[in-house]
Amino acid sequence: MTFDPASLNYDAHGLIPAIAQDHATGEVLMLAWMNAESLAETLRTGQVTYWSRSRKELWAKGATSGHVQRLVELRLDCDRDCLLLRVDQTGPACHTNRRSCFYTAVREGEEIEVLKPMA
Amino acid sequence: MTFDPASLNYDAHGLIPAIAQDHATGEVLMLAWMNAESLAETLRTGQVTYWSRSRKELWAKGATSGHVQRLVELRLDCDRDCLLLRVDQTGPACHTNRRSCFYTAVREGEEIEVLKPMA
Repeated sequence: MTFDPASLNYDAHGLIPAIAQDHATGEVLMLAWMNAESLAETLRTGQVTYWSRSRKELWAKGATSGHVQRLVELRLDCDRDCLLLRVDQTGPACHTNRRSCFYTAVREGEEIEVLKPMA
Repeated sequence: MTFDPASLNYDAHGLIPAIAQDHATGEVLMLAWMNAESLAETLRTGQVTYWSRSRKELWAKGATSGHVQRLVELRLDCDRDCLLLRVDQTGPACHTNRRSCFYTAVREGEEIEVLKPMA
């Protein structure tokens, strides 16, 4: 079946959550949001573009930092209301310079930093 | 620092997206939503409980199907507005009986089923 971005279930704001996962290691890097336009741009260019909810504009990941995400494979979930982006991540995915945004673990009720910023 | 569920950035509906990942294989299994109560219940019991947006009630994952998720580790992202649940998944995570909800890949513009239902 030909994929139609309009067939996805966007929320009331026209957005859908997108999980970025390192295609080689399986590491979950970040979660951000897409609208139909950013998804189309991602598929057209092969580089991940999100929708910035704070700036209310297209956000070509890594456009200024160089920390781009090359889309290796797009996956949809069963309800078509979430995307999984299997990516080739250049450098850190997180604005804190860490490989992944999920660098805080909760262990025995305490927050523990489990990833350091990249050199 | 002691983890306080009230310190998370919930959305306007009091919800936060939670990604469930197989702790052993790294496979992304599903994305669902939590509120503060479901997160507290998850931490109290060690079994993942979400908030069902359709039924508007706590959803103890696997309570009827037996396909429970044991929480191995909770992680927070940099913005504290998304959770990563590293879990030990019993059986399929997806209601379609597939291991993961992300069983549809988009390849060269076509939707391809990449995971079959479990036996």
